[in-house]
Amino acid sequence: MELPDRATTFFRELQDRICAALEKLDGRGRFREDAWMREGGGGGRTRVLEEGGVFEKAGVNWSDVAGELPEELADKMPGSGRAFRACGVSLVIHPRSPMVPTTHANFRCLTQGEACWFGGGADLTPYYPYREDVIAFHQQWKNVCDRHDPTYYPRFKKWCDEYFYLPHRGEMRGVGGIFFDYLRGELLEEIFAFVQDAGNTVVPAYRAIVEKRRAEPYGESEREFQLWRRGRYVEFNLIYDRGTIFGLRTSGRVESILMSLPPLVRWKYAHEAAAGSREAELESYLHPQDWLTAPSIVSPS
Amino acid sequence: MELPDRATTFFRELQDRICAALEKLDGRGRFREDAWMREGGGGGRTRVLEEGGVFEKAGVNWSDVAGELPEELADKMPGSGRAFRACGVSLVIHPRSPMVPTTHANFRCLTQGEACWFGGGADLTPYYPYREDVIAFHQQWKNVCDRHDPTYYPRFKKWCDEYFYLPHRGEMRGVGGIFFDYLRGELLEEIFAFVQDAGNTVVPAYRAIVEKRRAEPYGESEREFQLWRRGRYVEFNLIYDRGTIFGLRTSGRVESILMSLPPLVRWKYAHEAAAGSREAELESYLHPQDWLTAPSIVSPS
Repeated sequence: MELPDRATTFFRELQDRICAALEKLDGRGRFREDAWMREGGGGGRTRVLEEGGVFEKAGVNWSDVAGELPEELADKMPGSGRAFRACGVSLVIHPRSPMVPTTHANFRCLTQGEACWFGGGADLTPYYPYREDVIAFHQQWKNVCDRHDPTYYPRFKKWCDEYFYLPHRGEMRGVGGIFFDYLRGELLEEIFAFVQDAGNTVVPAYRAIVEKRRAEPYGESEREFQLWRRGRYVEFNLIYDRGTIFGLRTSGRVESILMSLPPLVRWKYAHEAAAGSREAELESYLHPQDWLTAPSIVSPS
Repeated sequence: MELPDRATTFFRELQDRICAALEKLDGRGRFREDAWMREGGGGGRTRVLEEGGVFEKAGVNWSDVAGELPEELADKMPGSGRAFRACGVSLVIHPRSPMVPTTHANFRCLTQGEACWFGGGADLTPYYPYREDVIAFHQQWKNVCDRHDPTYYPRFKKWCDEYFYLPHRGEMRGVGGIFFDYLRGELLEEIFAFVQDAGNTVVPAYRAIVEKRRAEPYGESEREFQLWRRGRYVEFNLIYDRGTIFGLRTSGRVESILMSLPPLVRWKYAHEAAAGSREAELESYLHPQDWLTAPSIVSPS
C-alpha cells in the first residue's frame, strides 16, 4: 500500500482511539459524528463532544481530501502542479475548567504531484498555568522527538514558538509544544514512524494534565478570565492560522474547520490582569523559553 | 484651513455628538475615554461604553494618524508614495437585547502624496429582524445620498452588500446599508459635504430602531441566538474586514481596532436554526435585495 494510503488509515484509526480515550476521560460527554464528502474530492469524519463533564467542547477531525489547489497556494508549496491530496487528523479541546489548559494537535500527510510530506504538532494553551505541567508536556514531546532524531525537538519547539504567535498582541497563543511542516525526503518511512509515535502521544501527554487539574477549585472570576483569554485563541485562529486559511480557501467544510473556536468567549475593552495577580502570571508564560533546562521562574502566587 | 484638517475637526466633533446622544439613549452607561498617541505619528481618542442599560458595548473611535504605509498597502492605494494621513471616526454598537440590531459606521479621510479621498459607510446587523426597520434604515441612507448625488445610493448600497459578505458562510454580515471608498476628484468639497451629512445621520437612523425595539420582550433562548449570531460578526471582522487588517498592519492601537468585537460570543458546532422558526427567518435577510422597492417577503412567522 502506498504511504499516503497507510497514513490515512493510521490517522483514521488514531481518531477512533483519541475519541474513545477522551470520552473515558470526560466521563459524561459523547462525540457526535458527521461524515461528509467534499465536492472536489474526498471527505472526512468530524466528531464533536459538547457540554461534557470535563470538556466544554472537544473536536476531533479526520479528513482525506483531494483536488486542485488554488494557484496562489500551489505556488507556495514544495511540490509541482495543482493536484493535491491532504489527509490527517486534528483536534482542539476546550475544557470547562480554567484550571485545565486547552490543547490542540494536528498531524497530516500532503501530496502535491510527486512530492509527499508530513506536517503537524501539538501545543498547550493554559489559562492558570502550572509550570510543572508545562515542563511535563514539553518533556513528553522531547522524548518522542528524541526517539527519532535528536535535532527534532529543538527545531520543532522553536518552530512552534514562532508559529503560534500573535504579532498584534506581542505574545504566543500558549506555551507551545512542537510544530513541523514540509518534513520529507528519502527517509519518508522514518518520518512516518515519527508521526505515528507523535500521534500516539497526544492523549497521554494531555491526560496527565487533565487528571491532575480537573478537581482544582475555581469560581466565577477564574471562569471570566478563561472566557477573556479565549478571545486570543479566536484572534489567532481567524487572523493567522494557516490551517484555517487553507481550509477556508480550498472550500473545506466550514464547521469542521471552525470547530477549533472556543464555545463561549468574552472580549472586554482594554482589559488587563491586575499586576501581581495569578492572572498576570500567565503573561510570563507566553514568551518563548527553554522549559526543560531554564531555572524556575519564581512564581508570585 | 486644508480639507483634511477641516475633516478631522468635523470627525472629532462628530465623535462628541455621537457619544452624547448614545449616553442619553442608553440612560445608564457612560463612555470612558482613552486618548492615545501613535509612535509613527498622530493619535486618537477611543471611547467605550460597557454594560450600559441598552448597550452591552458601544465603541466610538476618533483617530488622526500619519506615517509611512507598508509597501504592499501603499501600492494598492490611489495615491503615490508611502506617506499617508488617515483621520476618521468609527463606531460599533452591540446592544444587550437581541431585538435591537448591532450597527457599525465609519467615515474617514485619507491622504497619500497629493491624493485625498473619503471612504465610509453605515450598516445594520439584526438578530431578530423587522422588515420595516430595515426599510426605514435604508430609506434614511437613500435620502442622505439623494441630497448629494442620485447615483450614490444604488452604487453604495451594492458596494455595501458586496463588502460585508462572508464567502465561507455564503451570507452577508447583516442587511447592509451604504459603503464607499476612494471617493475623490475635483469636487472634493462636495464629497466632504456628503460625508458630513452622512456622519450626522448615524445617530438618527439607528436611534429610531433602538427606541422602537428596546422594550420588546425576550428570554434566554433569544439571548442564546444572539450570542451565536455574534460569532459571524467576529468571523467577518477578523477574517475579511479591511479596516481591521489595515489597522493591525499599520501598527494601529490594537484595543481601539478590536473594540468592534462583541462582548460575549458563542460558537456551537454545526448549529442551525430550526426550519420555520423566527431564528431561521433571519437567513432570508442576509442576501442582497432591494429593500426600498421590492415586494414584501412573506414572513413565515
